[in-house]
Amino acid sequence: MNHQENDHRQAPVRLAIAGYGNLGRGVEQAVAKNPDMVLTGVYTRRDPAGVHPASGVASYPLSALAQHRGKVDVLVLCGGSKDDLPEQTPEFARHFNVVDSFDTHARIPEHFAKVDAAARAGATTALISAGWDPGLFSIQRVMGDALLPDGATYTFWGKGLSQGHSDAIRHVPGVAGGVQYTIPVQEAMQRVRSGTRPDLATREKHRRECFVVLKEGADAEAVRQAIVSMPNYFSDYDTTVHFISAQQLAAEHAGMGHGGFVIRSGNTSNQLKHVLEFSLQLDSNPEFTASVLVACARAVHRLHQAGQHGCKTVLDLSPALLSPRSGAELRADFL
Amino acid sequence: MNHQENDHRQAPVRLAIAGYGNLGRGVEQAVAKNPDMVLTGVYTRRDPAGVHPASGVASYPLSALAQHRGKVDVLVLCGGSKDDLPEQTPEFARHFNVVDSFDTHARIPEHFAKVDAAARAGATTALISAGWDPGLFSIQRVMGDALLPDGATYTFWGKGLSQGHSDAIRHVPGVAGGVQYTIPVQEAMQRVRSGTRPDLATREKHRRECFVVLKEGADAEAVRQAIVSMPNYFSDYDTTVHFISAQQLAAEHAGMGHGGFVIRSGNTSNQLKHVLEFSLQLDSNPEFTASVLVACARAVHRLHQAGQHGCKTVLDLSPALLSPRSGAELRADFL
Repeated sequence: MNHQENDHRQAPVRLAIAGYGNLGRGVEQAVAKNPDMVLTGVYTRRDPAGVHPASGVASYPLSALAQHRGKVDVLVLCGGSKDDLPEQTPEFARHFNVVDSFDTHARIPEHFAKVDAAARAGATTALISAGWDPGLFSIQRVMGDALLPDGATYTFWGKGLSQGHSDAIRHVPGVAGGVQYTIPVQEAMQRVRSGTRPDLATREKHRRECFVVLKEGADAEAVRQAIVSMPNYFSDYDTTVHFISAQQLAAEHAGMGHGGFVIRSGNTSNQLKHVLEFSLQLDSNPEFTASVLVACARAVHRLHQAGQHGCKTVLDLSPALLSPRSGAELRADFL
Repeated sequence: MNHQENDHRQAPVRLAIAGYGNLGRGVEQAVAKNPDMVLTGVYTRRDPAGVHPASGVASYPLSALAQHRGKVDVLVLCGGSKDDLPEQTPEFARHFNVVDSFDTHARIPEHFAKVDAAARAGATTALISAGWDPGLFSIQRVMGDALLPDGATYTFWGKGLSQGHSDAIRHVPGVAGGVQYTIPVQEAMQRVRSGTRPDLATREKHRRECFVVLKEGADAEAVRQAIVSMPNYFSDYDTTVHFISAQQLAAEHAGMGHGGFVIRSGNTSNQLKHVLEFSLQLDSNPEFTASVLVACARAVHRLHQAGQHGCKTVLDLSPALLSPRSGAELRADFL
């Protein structure tokens, strides 16, 4: 099959959303930006009577999906990587084409194996770990490695809020609330961009900045010490702790912006080096991730139509598969 | 077929080079950086007795290719886009899997059609217009458009030497030699990065800098005026002309560095925007282009093994197809 020659207009791809949090709402917005897509429903574990999707589409209990199989081309799974997706993606991949944003890097091979087995058994097509990291950043890491084999790749994250580190702060005695930002160190990025392939310690690549609301009567210095010395989370980094009010926390730290950089430098001969850099600057981590999920759902639908079953990742997708445009249009206007 | 599960080590991909200029020499060096590739020969229109490839591989007349069909998996065409490739790529695609770097954007659809017909007739696999633009920049333009459909894409080139503009300078009466650099305008790039999607005139995006050696007795001001007012090439740009000596030209302007930026900004909802940026900083335009050609040759070989005949572009290639690594390794270490 030649995806790119698929020039004629087809029926819209029918998407359904499972899980209506920030990511699910983002998918709903992304569908509205893609005229070749239509949203058929939102499926939730909550009481659907209390879930009112912004687009006016119907909400159903998750259990209703079994009866709606023929009405959904691709199910976009919008649950969390810790508890939801490890169960849901293999379960739903037996009966639906699915896309998820599973982002626990260390557990991707295990998740892939389970989803692949389910999708092969069900003759469906699944795509896991879509988003920006894993996702777009993974694409850049693989391309950099393939195009400049004698080289080194560096990933920097931020500036952005880390949910895991923010949770860790909130568990420190004396802390009423707080957030943590991961910030790439500019000096390290400049060294990487120079093409010298530096060895960088953890502390040299990122620093951590915390905004903390103390409980009444808490000892600020003790809280600061508990945070900066916390193993795994903070002790290997230069960490700054700012104490702020609950009002400041709510007013100034509710944004969901994020971003980062993938930089590959390498040599094609002894004297000649090259630097490839990809960066993202996102106003909303979940809305952008959702937009990637929707483009991936388009690719999944096409792969399924072409009889390609089993589990895929973004590393298996050509740019043309992600695009609504025809091959002829892409070659004429984008190549 | 599932390319990514192709984990077992296979025989090296046998490449041959047609055309031994800067690009051909770059392909030779790139093969040395890719252990899964081997170079079987250099084919030239010159007398092969006078062509001595740096790697020690044999050189042959171009006409010998017909007898070497069984010894070449992919033929890498390293001729020019103006006169060589429009003839050579369709001709050789009848009998060989081929890769070229055809970069005349406006003529890509026509070139594609000819090469596609030849490759389908010969049951071969061809890939045209590999490199960085067209090539990696095209991939970023398509991905940006697909992932942020409500947005705008900007391509900036440079700083780098433009062969066409340098040629144009050399044809001005009174000019003994010269080069022209295309330079992106920083202010325009900053506006684009802000996500405001500015409308930018040609003059606002790039400026042009010329280094010119005068013929003896030439009128510098007349030469300057002839250059800056030249239609198509310079009159729509802010152009600076520096007069230098022949020694300076040879010593300071022989490099082949280039680069550029593809920036996509777009909104996922009214208030929330995102910026994707990809940039290249290349010490050698031909060596980097050659490195891309070699990775694409790997993909072409795999597509041919999978029975996918006809003409492709980089827009049809998944990252996994470009990589020598197995799907399991990519998922575990790169995703």
